[in-house]
Amino acid sequence: MHNFRIVIDTFGPDAGPIEVIKGADELLKKHPEVVLTLVGNEQLIKENIQDLARVKIIPTDNYISNTENIMEAFMNKKDASIILAAQETKAQEDAIGMLSAGNSGALLVSCLKFLASPDLARPCIAAVLPAENGSFTCLVDTGANIDCTPSQLHQFALLGSKFMRELYGIESPKVGLLSNGVESTKGNKLVKETYPILEAEEKINFVGNIEGNRALSGDCDVLVADGFSANQVLKVTEGTAARIIKDIFIYSKKTNKPEFTEVAAHLMKIYDLSSLGGGVVLGIAKPVIKCRGNSKAITFVNTAEMLINIANNKTLFEGKDNDRS
Amino acid sequence: MHNFRIVIDTFGPDAGPIEVIKGADELLKKHPEVVLTLVGNEQLIKENIQDLARVKIIPTDNYISNTENIMEAFMNKKDASIILAAQETKAQEDAIGMLSAGNSGALLVSCLKFLASPDLARPCIAAVLPAENGSFTCLVDTGANIDCTPSQLHQFALLGSKFMRELYGIESPKVGLLSNGVESTKGNKLVKETYPILEAEEKINFVGNIEGNRALSGDCDVLVADGFSANQVLKVTEGTAARIIKDIFIYSKKTNKPEFTEVAAHLMKIYDLSSLGGGVVLGIAKPVIKCRGNSKAITFVNTAEMLINIANNKTLFEGKDNDRS
Repeated sequence: MHNFRIVIDTFGPDAGPIEVIKGADELLKKHPEVVLTLVGNEQLIKENIQDLARVKIIPTDNYISNTENIMEAFMNKKDASIILAAQETKAQEDAIGMLSAGNSGALLVSCLKFLASPDLARPCIAAVLPAENGSFTCLVDTGANIDCTPSQLHQFALLGSKFMRELYGIESPKVGLLSNGVESTKGNKLVKETYPILEAEEKINFVGNIEGNRALSGDCDVLVADGFSANQVLKVTEGTAARIIKDIFIYSKKTNKPEFTEVAAHLMKIYDLSSLGGGVVLGIAKPVIKCRGNSKAITFVNTAEMLINIANNKTLFEGKDNDRS
Repeated sequence: MHNFRIVIDTFGPDAGPIEVIKGADELLKKHPEVVLTLVGNEQLIKENIQDLARVKIIPTDNYISNTENIMEAFMNKKDASIILAAQETKAQEDAIGMLSAGNSGALLVSCLKFLASPDLARPCIAAVLPAENGSFTCLVDTGANIDCTPSQLHQFALLGSKFMRELYGIESPKVGLLSNGVESTKGNKLVKETYPILEAEEKINFVGNIEGNRALSGDCDVLVADGFSANQVLKVTEGTAARIIKDIFIYSKKTNKPEFTEVAAHLMKIYDLSSLGGGVVLGIAKPVIKCRGNSKAITFVNTAEMLINIANNKTLFEGKDNDRS
């Protein structure tokens, strides 16, 4: 059996490194073909992993927090976990990819520095989200590039299309541009300048502007947006779902109909975006997955499985959307 | 009984002028103290309004569509309904305000041209939305200003605060800035430049950055954002709610439990943002309400009641959130 090495930065989640390490332990139990490099506190790793024979530890207690100036951190924290993890991912030939729940900006800079692809100027982070019609929508960029240029959005459209074609087997992925109206005249300056570029690009199947209420409708397979706007789509979706689930619990109590909590439980399964996976950094030499700050142990198992699927060149999430309708 | 005049532009809704005119008819029946100026197709108005004695008609069949270049339209369509309505609102002393579901940009230019306030440079559109904790959040700007400067966001913060203080009786409204992270270092260029300005402004109670998942949590009373990002918050909220309601119907059918549709019906009442009201243009001489494109007859009744409440200087939506928890 072939050994896949996955490199995991254990610092970053809101709940601390323990969630990552627990996830790593589960992953080892579930996937005998996997070996790991874990970057982080040596003692904590040793105490919480059973099968240490399949783990290489790169010990460090240094990391880049969410509030730090990234460029300064890069100068002063050469032993930050995210930097060591990216270096390891590059160095190890059997490494199929890397996971981190650390600072998005720092992750991107690490990717650029150690895993840059010769043909691409600017990587982005793609989040693959379950769409209303049972398909999946690839949202690019989800946080790596906050202020974008039209040529960056153009590149994200190409990267997202390639990703959905190769990993999801969609021959001609429909590409939409997030805007505040469907008409080609709608949009902020960035969107208005990007529209004709996407329209003229023959390598993609551009379907025009997509409004926020149709963002995850399945109208497009790839939704292009700057990182700031994409962050709103992600977080507002999640926030609204969480709020509605709470509404249902309140209503169930108020009407004295406990059976309604079954509806809430069903929705919680569909809209738990934090367990679903992470964002995949596109446009670099090896796949790197950015897990969100609120990631739990299960997130790291799920995202590691995305890396395994990519390595196996299988369609991602294969058969995973069965309980969605 | 005092007569309030409300000026209504009948062009604009996706469903055509008939929804507006039906709403006007209902409004007249419900509010004997109201008289109307209706701008639009004379015959259609005459055919669908019972009490024509309380209606002044300004006949026109011209309007500015959503896809037009606004400045060109202003030059060439002097008799567009939105322009005539704004002129009438200014001209009639008893006019307490105006309603329109027309082109946001054209509405804003009309407001600037005919209803400008001497002390303000740039109006904005405020949407007042029901927040999770039962309070209301004023989102500024919701579409009038798509590309913004930090000084515009500063002005929106001041306008929104004044609105929530005067109309909702909140002494020191909490002002949040929509961002992609709560830390003061997070944000796109616009947000990062706006943050210190809001922090230094003594006339507002600035509570820092607010992420999309907390946008309508009630963490702030006024949420400041450029029109493009605010549009995402509004539409993604609405889209997610609509999708979840559909999910519940599907689940109800799948599990053969028709009682679950009661939950969906309850949620539809809470999240029907289109009937809730419209955006109020702040920073001009008289209140003007922008109704959304998907407005129904009931929307025009509800928004006209907002104008009546403003004219009566009563707290808006008074007692309206009783069935929300």
